[in-house]
Amino acid sequence: MPNVFLSSPPPPGLTFQNPSRLNPSCLSSLCSPKSPKPRTLSIKCSQSDTYGQQRSFSPNNGPSYPPQSGVGLPPKVFVGHSIYKGKAVLTVEPRAPEFVTLESGAFKIGREGNVFLQFAPAAGTRQYDWDRKQIFSLSATEIGTLISLGPTESCEFFHDPFIGRSDEGKVRKVLKVEPLSDGSGHLFNLSVLNMLINMEESIFVPVTKGEYAVLVSLFNFALPYLLGWNTLADSARPEDTRRLNNANPRSGVDYEWSR
Amino acid sequence: MPNVFLSSPPPPGLTFQNPSRLNPSCLSSLCSPKSPKPRTLSIKCSQSDTYGQQRSFSPNNGPSYPPQSGVGLPPKVFVGHSIYKGKAVLTVEPRAPEFVTLESGAFKIGREGNVFLQFAPAAGTRQYDWDRKQIFSLSATEIGTLISLGPTESCEFFHDPFIGRSDEGKVRKVLKVEPLSDGSGHLFNLSVLNMLINMEESIFVPVTKGEYAVLVSLFNFALPYLLGWNTLADSARPEDTRRLNNANPRSGVDYEWSR
Amino acid sequence: MPNVFLSSPPPPGLTFQNPSRLNPSCLSSLCSPKSPKPRTLSIKCSQSDTYGQQRSFSPNNGPSYPPQSGVGLPPKVFVGHSIYKGKAVLTVEPRAPEFVTLESGAFKIGREGNVFLQFAPAAGTRQYDWDRKQIFSLSATEIGTLISLGPTESCEFFHDPFIGRSDEGKVRKVLKVEPLSDGSGHLFNLSVLNMLINMEESIFVPVTKGEYAVLVSLFNFALPYLLGWNTLADSARPEDTRRLNNANPRSGVDYEWSR
Amino acid sequence: MPNVFLSSPPPPGLTFQNPSRLNPSCLSSLCSPKSPKPRTLSIKCSQSDTYGQQRSFSPNNGPSYPPQSGVGLPPKVFVGHSIYKGKAVLTVEPRAPEFVTLESGAFKIGREGNVFLQFAPAAGTRQYDWDRKQIFSLSATEIGTLISLGPTESCEFFHDPFIGRSDEGKVRKVLKVEPLSDGSGHLFNLSVLNMLINMEESIFVPVTKGEYAVLVSLFNFALPYLLGWNTLADSARPEDTRRLNNANPRSGVDYEWSR
Repeated sequence: MPNVFLSSPPPPGLTFQNPSRLNPSCLSSLCSPKSPKPRTLSIKCSQSDTYGQQRSFSPNNGPSYPPQSGVGLPPKVFVGHSIYKGKAVLTVEPRAPEFVTLESGAFKIGREGNVFLQFAPAAGTRQYDWDRKQIFSLSATEIGTLISLGPTESCEFFHDPFIGRSDEGKVRKVLKVEPLSDGSGHLFNLSVLNMLINMEESIFVPVTKGEYAVLVSLFNFALPYLLGWNTLADSARPEDTRRLNNANPRSGVDYEWSR
Repeated sequence: MPNVFLSSPPPPGLTFQNPSRLNPSCLSSLCSPKSPKPRTLSIKCSQSDTYGQQRSFSPNNGPSYPPQSGVGLPPKVFVGHSIYKGKAVLTVEPRAPEFVTLESGAFKIGREGNVFLQFAPAAGTRQYDWDRKQIFSLSATEIGTLISLGPTESCEFFHDPFIGRSDEGKVRKVLKVEPLSDGSGHLFNLSVLNMLINMEESIFVPVTKGEYAVLVSLFNFALPYLLGWNTLADSARPEDTRRLNNANPRSGVDYEWSR
Repeated sequence: MPNVFLSSPPPPGLTFQNPSRLNPSCLSSLCSPKSPKPRTLSIKCSQSDTYGQQRSFSPNNGPSYPPQSGVGLPPKVFVGHSIYKGKAVLTVEPRAPEFVTLESGAFKIGREGNVFLQFAPAAGTRQYDWDRKQIFSLSATEIGTLISLGPTESCEFFHDPFIGRSDEGKVRKVLKVEPLSDGSGHLFNLSVLNMLINMEESIFVPVTKGEYAVLVSLFNFALPYLLGWNTLADSARPEDTRRLNNANPRSGVDYEWSR
Repeated sequence: MPNVFLSSPPPPGLTFQNPSRLNPSCLSSLCSPKSPKPRTLSIKCSQSDTYGQQRSFSPNNGPSYPPQSGVGLPPKVFVGHSIYKGKAVLTVEPRAPEFVTLESGAFKIGREGNVFLQFAPAAGTRQYDWDRKQIFSLSATEIGTLISLGPTESCEFFHDPFIGRSDEGKVRKVLKVEPLSDGSGHLFNLSVLNMLINMEESIFVPVTKGEYAVLVSLFNFALPYLLGWNTLADSARPEDTRRLNNANPRSGVDYEWSR
């Protein structure tokens, strides 16, 4: 029997993380074209019952949070944004990239950041079964695909979390994003087939146009951070340039082509 | 008789706040599709008389501001952006989210931020009656709906500030946003029916395409802050990663799927 | 005879500023619709000669810069972005808003920021006559109009820098932005009629689609700063919220509607 | 014989830089219109084999990194974002602008930032030949052209890294960006003809719609930094304004037009 709101499932952000650095989890991405429909001009928002639910669930009903680790670090902030619907909930949360130190003292991106999706089915009215939650980690390119998805377009991503390891092929995850038939938004569907524990799960969350616009805004904001381009804010400083000019008087002499 | 510019109405940002944490104020959101019209290609800016008025009203004519509270906090900054028109004024202002501290010392979002709308009717030439102002608090999803609203689309939001409390149903607020008939922008209409004090008010503010584009730009900027994703700027730092790696050497071992 | 590159014209940002706080300079904004054309799908970039010129003119050839004023302020940074063409140059530069202090110690916007346009005609090959430059200060709404301008749309803004003063009506400025006939971008035209000194000037700068996209990106970035919404970065901090909660334990009790 | 992954090619960001300050490298930009096609509504993501490759190549396989220079500077962070495909790889990385100090202590942009493209051909399965890499430096306007490029549009940029110098005309670089025939994205093609060393190279990288959306998001984020507009974050501060008002009491008296 599923444990509903009583267990302490693994917290988001610590246990279930993207293995892309060690083992690429992505088998492939296939996007099926939708036959063109005329551009719809109406907006249907979420139904009133699910909308009310959206407000009624505070994150207190979700998973518990782990203790802080790492003295001297800025405090961890959990910023999962949830879309609560009658049959399931979808939570999106960004993961910062990891940097590695080079011998010179400089840094490079060791692992790109991503956006973590959590799907949990409803376990009754305004209750979600976090024990049955399924997760999916969006890469930068997959985020880009969702950002640029037209109102009548659909896409599909395939992940194998064990790719390149002994259990490769035994777990398959498919995320489908398709237009809702009434043109009011998109349907997110995560299907997971786990042959290791003989489990199959498929969770659907309808996302209205307004909710999708929020996701696009968040994803657009997050992408430069996920790829480290926010460090431009440090290098594009007039004060630093002054010092740079003093430290490196030849910096003005450089060529696009100098072989 | 309405008190025009003489009273000290409750300041924006302290008295009238979004009750979504305690009592969801949102009954439902209904968006009525507009029959498709050909994409209009003209831009009609605001009429010259109202445009002149827009410049003539400084925030000095608006509500007064409360004293600061909270020693050691960064100073409060009031950044309401107003669209002054002949018959009414619309002011938009962002509200930061509230965070709560977890036992671990980490934070999570306790209440999402929102955008606060204030409508006040005109009380004569270049005067607005702030005593009769009506307010409406936009959630993230409602902001997303406005951001993604096409030039010929309309939408409608319903709020009950007393939902879930004893006075539920006695106050109804409806915000409608519809295309102007001449294609020059959208009409914002806030209707409030208050059976507790037997009051009914409906205020209209036409918003030109240029003004709407400013709102979209502000809303797009604000959304990540309202949902706390701006904290990515703290976690996506190369220096922190270095420390994180030292503090948590196992951070590289993680799986999207590890049951 | 015009003084070419030898004079020290008034520096940008100090002498010619937007009088909107004291005297609205904006008579009206009129935007003439363009008859719909099919969406053009080609991109014509700037001609090679003008493109070469664009690179050949460094800001050193432009106006001189004033001494710094204000001890303890962050250093002033001039970030005018110029579009150099064969017959004229257009420079765009943002102006930060001005805040005023309230009695409580809080701040509000005293004057909204704007974007300052400078047009200077060419005075020969790769030389511009800064003595004949004309200026135009874009308000937030005008910026929004330019951001949302479609590829086949045009718009027009009217300013009177002396509006509300004794010389009202004696100087008229009109900024027109129209699609180029070949669909390669937009033509910016600033016309100034100054009856005080019996001067008339009309300067044209063709702006390619790529250049226009740069302007839109800069304007979109700047708008929240011009209206003070960047201060959300200070208020949307988890640390501050913690302190706020301690300082103001009633902060959770608030209503959208509390009359 | 090409040296594959064994050499230490010149690091990105130090050797091959944009000579635009000293010698404009840009001959011209020509964009050829594509005959209009109906708006395609399908999304084809990258093929599974190349997608797997994308994940399998860490930056460790790329060029080495130089030692840090400049004591007291914030650490250099390498944030090249790579699109790995079967026949070649494309890496994009931003370059901060350079500021120069004016006599007054103020700053101005001495050289605008840009985005650096590196193309390297494959040298076998999941190996790239960095010795044969070709580079191309995108100016702000070229970035704007790519940002605003429609799904069925194409564009073309020409650079001569020796323009204005004795070897002008001996090296020609052409970057073409064209829609893929199946509508799944754009094809990036960098062709370099170097008559100095009798070398000719043409490298193709297909970029899916999702990958292109990531580039657009990064470019849109970067543009204000490349042109220095991020310094608005310093000038648009309420605290500074207060000090400014004290230091310069006449700051409220200014006119758009004051001749």
